[in-house]
Amino acid sequence: MSAGHEPVAGERLLATYDLVCEHEQDAFARAREIAFEQTVELPEACVPPALVRAVVGHVDDMVRLGKRRWRATLSYPAEIVGGEVPQLLNLLFGNVSLFTGVRLVDLVWPPSLLAAFGGPRFGIAGVRKLLPQADGRALLMVPIKPIGLTARELGALAHRFARGGVDLIKDDNSLADQATAPFAERVARVAELVRLAHEETGSQTVYIPHISGPLERLPEKVAILKREGVRAALVSAFTQGLDALRYLAQSSGLALFTHPALSGAFFGRTHGLAPEVVYGDLLRVLGADGVVYANAGGRFPIEEAQCEATNERLRRPLGSIRPAFPVAGGGVRVETLPRWAARYGPDTVFLIGGSLYLQEDVEAATRALVQALAWQGGRTVE
Amino acid sequence: MSAGHEPVAGERLLATYDLVCEHEQDAFARAREIAFEQTVELPEACVPPALVRAVVGHVDDMVRLGKRRWRATLSYPAEIVGGEVPQLLNLLFGNVSLFTGVRLVDLVWPPSLLAAFGGPRFGIAGVRKLLPQADGRALLMVPIKPIGLTARELGALAHRFARGGVDLIKDDNSLADQATAPFAERVARVAELVRLAHEETGSQTVYIPHISGPLERLPEKVAILKREGVRAALVSAFTQGLDALRYLAQSSGLALFTHPALSGAFFGRTHGLAPEVVYGDLLRVLGADGVVYANAGGRFPIEEAQCEATNERLRRPLGSIRPAFPVAGGGVRVETLPRWAARYGPDTVFLIGGSLYLQEDVEAATRALVQALAWQGGRTVE
Repeated sequence: MSAGHEPVAGERLLATYDLVCEHEQDAFARAREIAFEQTVELPEACVPPALVRAVVGHVDDMVRLGKRRWRATLSYPAEIVGGEVPQLLNLLFGNVSLFTGVRLVDLVWPPSLLAAFGGPRFGIAGVRKLLPQADGRALLMVPIKPIGLTARELGALAHRFARGGVDLIKDDNSLADQATAPFAERVARVAELVRLAHEETGSQTVYIPHISGPLERLPEKVAILKREGVRAALVSAFTQGLDALRYLAQSSGLALFTHPALSGAFFGRTHGLAPEVVYGDLLRVLGADGVVYANAGGRFPIEEAQCEATNERLRRPLGSIRPAFPVAGGGVRVETLPRWAARYGPDTVFLIGGSLYLQEDVEAATRALVQALAWQGGRTVE
Repeated sequence: MSAGHEPVAGERLLATYDLVCEHEQDAFARAREIAFEQTVELPEACVPPALVRAVVGHVDDMVRLGKRRWRATLSYPAEIVGGEVPQLLNLLFGNVSLFTGVRLVDLVWPPSLLAAFGGPRFGIAGVRKLLPQADGRALLMVPIKPIGLTARELGALAHRFARGGVDLIKDDNSLADQATAPFAERVARVAELVRLAHEETGSQTVYIPHISGPLERLPEKVAILKREGVRAALVSAFTQGLDALRYLAQSSGLALFTHPALSGAFFGRTHGLAPEVVYGDLLRVLGADGVVYANAGGRFPIEEAQCEATNERLRRPLGSIRPAFPVAGGGVRVETLPRWAARYGPDTVFLIGGSLYLQEDVEAATRALVQALAWQGGRTVE
């Protein structure tokens, strides 16, 4: 528990689960089973009644959704989270992950947990302050890749994108600390060439290196980013561990964008966690200023409604927690960008990779995309 | 990359995926898509041919398993892992997690990666050295719980189990650093009462506190365990992040047992990761000396064949990597222990929780269980 964020007695964390059950009594029995499994993890007969009252989850609501489908809302005492990420995950989906037919679909956060985790340090407004040229419009992000290029080659790519006026350049999530482009060398080279583009053309580009690797080396890597004047970082929150996001948000002073690698393993249709809860709630509350997700219409089988749900959760009012940028990627192409920009509105980042790499003149193509977003401005098409 | 574990050029990591595809050409196209997606993450036309050769995965094998089911074996250059856990996870299942119908079912490790991660520091033989009384037989583990008890109450429970001669006492995975039993106080109290039982009865019990919480506080928590003379720890590797296991294995000097909380979210039937690969390969290679899993026949819907597959992988020869203990829990009761001990053999730990708590005299019941395991000895029933 962080100092100054003591839990308020009586505050509760609400978690809603969709259940696959035959009958109403099965659904109630399953919900009660979850309430015990996620807290005391013992049969009721072994638990002193005072602890049942103090610790075990409550089944607050049950709704029938359809044939064999029920929605149960449970509440847990906020203080058993202890303000720590691993225990938060354990409470929400630890042992029930080993059941079948249980899917976490909603969360309602008590103020003490929001204060303990703290959310984005920049948020949408803070990221916009780094990018004054993009006022009122959606942002363009591009990746530099692939793995196997040298730091010098990645820097040359970044230079072309920055000269084209791109807002954000991120390392590919596969760029870790491999021998072909070691972290420190890559960051120094790319940051240098983004600065050069700024001197040449006045472009304002924020470079987002991928910070990853052994947890004990994260402080050293943050120091390297600071030394190179970098103001943002990409965190693969699921491969790195979600607590690494919380740690970097609380300590690094960097604007943090998360990458969704590995997250899809959680998103079973009837068992697991709902993407909009993971991307829109968990990552935001743990400190993401921008959340990269795979957009509909691309190479991943994702529905647009799911992306809209994530967008809405990242931007909605949430107590003391700042809104965060949705970053739609993996399904946005040069030719579909205007449509997505109209659909998702100005408080969105669009990540364009492969289709931009296929353009003959990458700098000119980048410039055209930024102009398309500027032209689109704040307008959204319903 | 750890010093002294430079990758050997040409070494490859083999990953086998089960695919849901209509026709053979779809299966080959999907396998090739995975080979690009997991490495360069770009269309082939954008990747210089030299990089395609050096970095992109190879499709080494394709087998038809049945209607719409194919098994593809891909190989990746070992050096692109860079010896780091997050990039290992990213390579194996990062972006493909966002596909559907892709399931990781096998791994073949090159020696350089085994050396980089290092595996268990104790392994089965090392854990047995801590428990000379259990020579040649299966081990008994019990949890102390539930959350909400004070450190004093948890210590009193541990005292009774230790007096009964239990081999291993683990903290419940929900015991983090909550105000009711803060970590340092809990560890001190339980360790003290386990020592007291040893003085009283000569019992040899290893206490396994749950080490968890903010990653930047892990070194301080290891120091607390050392100060209290504790020789083992429980790691919730999935809620804490898998790199925390690697870190603790490489630096703590403790025997490490992993808890499976949250892991079930990965185990989709046609998409995700196979439990035996996660438990039996990943956790072992990253450093688990014992791997707790939910056993068949209990409150979780798990098949015995899956548990046997995990047991086999944890114990099999694997280059320089020590064998690790399977810890069958969550489905082992007082009355079924002899059957499971006969089935799984002596190199197994059995974790008994709820059904032992229901016994009137916990100390006597513990003693009877240990005697049953001693009587069973090394014999296995086929």
